[in-house]
Amino acid sequence: MFSGAQVSLYPMSDDFVDIILGAIESLDPWRDRLRLETDPLSTLMVGPPDILLPAMRDLFCAASRSGVHTTMHATVSRGCPGEPDDPICTPVASGRRDMPLADRVAEGRSAVAAAPSMNQTVAAQLSLYPLGVDHHMDEIYGCIAFLKASGVFDRSKSFCTALRGDAGPVFETLSQAFTGFGAEAGHLAMDVTVSANSPSDR
Amino acid sequence: MFSGAQVSLYPMSDDFVDIILGAIESLDPWRDRLRLETDPLSTLMVGPPDILLPAMRDLFCAASRSGVHTTMHATVSRGCPGEPDDPICTPVASGRRDMPLADRVAEGRSAVAAAPSMNQTVAAQLSLYPLGVDHHMDEIYGCIAFLKASGVFDRSKSFCTALRGDAGPVFETLSQAFTGFGAEAGHLAMDVTVSANSPSDR
Repeated sequence: MFSGAQVSLYPMSDDFVDIILGAIESLDPWRDRLRLETDPLSTLMVGPPDILLPAMRDLFCAASRSGVHTTMHATVSRGCPGEPDDPICTPVASGRRDMPLADRVAEGRSAVAAAPSMNQTVAAQLSLYPLGVDHHMDEIYGCIAFLKASGVFDRSKSFCTALRGDAGPVFETLSQAFTGFGAEAGHLAMDVTVSANSPSDR
Repeated sequence: MFSGAQVSLYPMSDDFVDIILGAIESLDPWRDRLRLETDPLSTLMVGPPDILLPAMRDLFCAASRSGVHTTMHATVSRGCPGEPDDPICTPVASGRRDMPLADRVAEGRSAVAAAPSMNQTVAAQLSLYPLGVDHHMDEIYGCIAFLKASGVFDRSKSFCTALRGDAGPVFETLSQAFTGFGAEAGHLAMDVTVSANSPSDR
């Protein structure tokens, strides 16, 4: 299995370089479980599917603590047949995608309810792409049912679902969406945008 | 058919609000062919699949002309079974996705060769997701063959392909990737990031 993300951080400030470089230090506690490679467009994170979003949460919260309007985009993927298997990607927890959709929704909700608070309000939107399966809309609709029941659902939009709330439960919801839907060993991609300190919120 | 995009513009500057509002005026010539709805996270563009990327090119070039390091992210989609048919989405040109992959690669290359120059160097990366098909990797590999032959190919990355060159041929390459691959009436999504004026390039 191969899993990881291409992650980009966008602080809307003249000081964007310092804010990005400062925030990247927040990934230090994760470095033994992630392989990181940065280029001018994004940082590649390779590691277990269930720690990708928690690591991004710490990265994003470190940047948004500057008070600057900051956005993060991530292209998250697991099970891509074009990538080699990598032992660093072994999931920390056992999978549960052979469970019925309703049970996966319930388990996802419990995980979100137990998420720690980060004391940072964020807005987010995500699109989930279960690839190589005939019933891809079933998994998408199952995931949308989970998002609506997550406690951080904001609204449905064309092509994506918007979330809003504390960064703790919002990133846990993103993590549950990524790990709980699509085929167990299948190819799944997720497109995520997270925003904080927007002047639109003031 | 329903097609469109959720588009976000990120100028890394204290003046981000003015740069975004100024750039949005560049969409005026497209407004009779697109429906636009802006919220705090992104602008929804609904319209024919073959004008979405040209309109984004004008939006992005207007913002990057400020000289500020600017990035744009778009979630682009067509044929989503969860969205209603909409007459505004009727393609301008006739489809060609029943042609063999090699012919589609050749047609895409011709279109890129004919693209106008915008006098703005950009870097970009894209991921293509053909949904609800068993042979999704064939279409992805066909698209990658096109990208490698496009004249603006930069390099392959995990989960995406990076492009680099003038905004004219780069956005035409993105447009050809979006309209030329995946099933004719099928569900296809594309995740695109474009960047200009990065300090990493200096």
